[in-house]
Amino acid sequence: MNSKPNAIVAQSGGPTAVINSSACGVIQEAANCGKIGKVLGAINGILGVLKEDLFDISAEKPETIEALKQTPAAAIGSCRYKLKSLDDFKADYERILDVFKVHDIHYFFYAGGNDSMDSADKINKLAADIGYDLVCMGVPKTIDNDLAYTDHCPGYGSTAKYVATCTMEAGKDTEALYTTDTCTILEVMGRNAGWIAAAAGLAARCSEDAPHLIYMPEAAFSFEKLVSDVKEVLKEFARVFIVAGEGLKNEKGNYITADTGAFGTDSFGHVQLGGVADMLKAVIEKEVGIKARFNKLGTNQRSAMHFASLTDVNEAYMCGQAAVKAAMAGENGKMVTLVRQDGRGYKCTTGLAELSDVANGEKKVPPEYINEKGNGITDAMRDYARPLIRGQAPVTIGDDGLPVYMRFERKPVEKKLPEYL
Amino acid sequence: MNSKPNAIVAQSGGPTAVINSSACGVIQEAANCGKIGKVLGAINGILGVLKEDLFDISAEKPETIEALKQTPAAAIGSCRYKLKSLDDFKADYERILDVFKVHDIHYFFYAGGNDSMDSADKINKLAADIGYDLVCMGVPKTIDNDLAYTDHCPGYGSTAKYVATCTMEAGKDTEALYTTDTCTILEVMGRNAGWIAAAAGLAARCSEDAPHLIYMPEAAFSFEKLVSDVKEVLKEFARVFIVAGEGLKNEKGNYITADTGAFGTDSFGHVQLGGVADMLKAVIEKEVGIKARFNKLGTNQRSAMHFASLTDVNEAYMCGQAAVKAAMAGENGKMVTLVRQDGRGYKCTTGLAELSDVANGEKKVPPEYINEKGNGITDAMRDYARPLIRGQAPVTIGDDGLPVYMRFERKPVEKKLPEYL
Repeated sequence: MNSKPNAIVAQSGGPTAVINSSACGVIQEAANCGKIGKVLGAINGILGVLKEDLFDISAEKPETIEALKQTPAAAIGSCRYKLKSLDDFKADYERILDVFKVHDIHYFFYAGGNDSMDSADKINKLAADIGYDLVCMGVPKTIDNDLAYTDHCPGYGSTAKYVATCTMEAGKDTEALYTTDTCTILEVMGRNAGWIAAAAGLAARCSEDAPHLIYMPEAAFSFEKLVSDVKEVLKEFARVFIVAGEGLKNEKGNYITADTGAFGTDSFGHVQLGGVADMLKAVIEKEVGIKARFNKLGTNQRSAMHFASLTDVNEAYMCGQAAVKAAMAGENGKMVTLVRQDGRGYKCTTGLAELSDVANGEKKVPPEYINEKGNGITDAMRDYARPLIRGQAPVTIGDDGLPVYMRFERKPVEKKLPEYL
Repeated sequence: MNSKPNAIVAQSGGPTAVINSSACGVIQEAANCGKIGKVLGAINGILGVLKEDLFDISAEKPETIEALKQTPAAAIGSCRYKLKSLDDFKADYERILDVFKVHDIHYFFYAGGNDSMDSADKINKLAADIGYDLVCMGVPKTIDNDLAYTDHCPGYGSTAKYVATCTMEAGKDTEALYTTDTCTILEVMGRNAGWIAAAAGLAARCSEDAPHLIYMPEAAFSFEKLVSDVKEVLKEFARVFIVAGEGLKNEKGNYITADTGAFGTDSFGHVQLGGVADMLKAVIEKEVGIKARFNKLGTNQRSAMHFASLTDVNEAYMCGQAAVKAAMAGENGKMVTLVRQDGRGYKCTTGLAELSDVANGEKKVPPEYINEKGNGITDAMRDYARPLIRGQAPVTIGDDGLPVYMRFERKPVEKKLPEYL
């Protein structure tokens, strides 16, 4: 007989190479703490809770759970479903608590970005209002590295390492073939924050190395500046390697390009961006008169487990574990944070921040990490990012020469409520 | 005093993760054979010969040369300069031989694709005509894997491994976020041959795994077929992952898209392709009504040393070595080939093919490697490609957590001829 309260673990937003490590930390610590009954997975984040699409993670094989540490994306399933405000749409929140009640769930561990922390916060507040005993804990996750109150975000280190390596490698390609392919543009993710673009700067160990120019949303972008920057680099190296964030903005703060198609915004209301590299390529070919090409790593930059940062994988696990430990210690309504320790060498521990604070915050690349010209990074940025990319996360390679990634069996939990959604 | 004849080693065309391994094989074997004086590098392929831009590879540190094995792209420099026909433009060929004569070069080792083999063949023929003692040997190189007379091409195995892994990883991402990002398209290189797209099929260990659809230039493409294929996959898995070769053609054999900009063709006269994924995305969003996104790895798929195939690296080295050994054994005008041995287990040795034969050949994905529907691969393709991706090539990681790739010092060889070009 299981008299202990159950827990739900859920994943939200864009997947990363290490969000499954965080889930592993939650699941294994929940099993170890002795105070939690079953750990259920909400298939596709909050959507799974709303639809009562749950599965029994406790019934999965231990080796499957362990393999989360080396599997990218979101094995429990993710979503971009945004809960409306409590005032506007209380029904969603009531439904969530109904599902929690009927499955005896009193712990909710939610890995995601600031939108997800907002959702968790609101669920928690309604639970308190109606007197339902619930502990909501957030686990940080985003390759964008833009969450406030944490030194950095699990997911960022692996993307940073991969993007820097891809910059280095495609940079070597441009260096070899510059007489034809004189300009290469690498477009990277980062809607409002340039952390990923900035990380590409780690690839350059000297001025000859790629990238020669880095454009981040934090520095106002102009095509006139681009053309003059490119000409200057060409004069010195006869080639140019550019890293461009997908969310470049002009001096007025407007995106220089936006997909205006039928799917122009995602369900969080964010403008779906694309085509920055295409735009830069066209301008450079026309105005500078050299051939340009672009690489767009797309979702591969957030799922590159095959070259993930061991530091990142370990910290992601630590965050999941810390969320459970904090809950057991009586904390509630908090997100786990990563706290960089002072002193020589890199050391990182965990802390806690209010969900509501994280929900309303955003951390951009600070001016001191961006060079004066607004087209590169400073040593302060290098010092910040370098420790986060260290170490090679282990990946099991199968007989077929390719990585072995797990998939849950997803033994469904019997539904007890009427359909919803 | 150096009375032995010198050798030139040159690299041509699109770089790969392992063309430097081939160069390493040439350089180290040339040093070992005892019959070659200096090994000179022609900076940027045949352009370096024409311009007399040579550097002394023999003067580089042995550890620099050894590090070629783990450095992507083309450390000697590559180009896409196409020599015109001997009849039309004999001057180029005469200049090449003038440069060879003045630097006492009697061995020319050229790593490249069929255009490069054509160049080497013509240089060799003119040398014979005028009675200049020259040995021209080709070393196969192309991620496209489209050279005839060889079982496969150095460069292909590493690209195949990386693209299959990226398919697996981005596939996990789509699997996690299918409620929003229902369709992902991975655009891969391969102008006329679908070998790279086909290799992505290795990622699927079961029908649920990405990729669900693979489109290769060898199978006539139609948008009607695409829409019906996508709908069928959606019915079964509620998501779809597509791999598309950049050179898809319709039933009339025309590219479905071509960059019509100022740089619409490269200097070999090839049409520069781009935008296939963009086009598929637009059609799927409009006709199927789901959100689609695309990843375009671009030059990162040919430079991904960080996850290169050890088999590929070793075979590339072996090809370089074999070119020198064959030259020492009295061969001339040949390209080294890879010969797969019969029997259980994978074994590969080298052979030789006439440069002129390779120059005029092209190897496409054969019908028996493509499924009946023209949207996937068969077990025969899997059996062919799997051995080529095995093993992880070693890469030195620096204190900064990133790969360490070499760069030649390039001590210039003094120019002795008037300027040319």
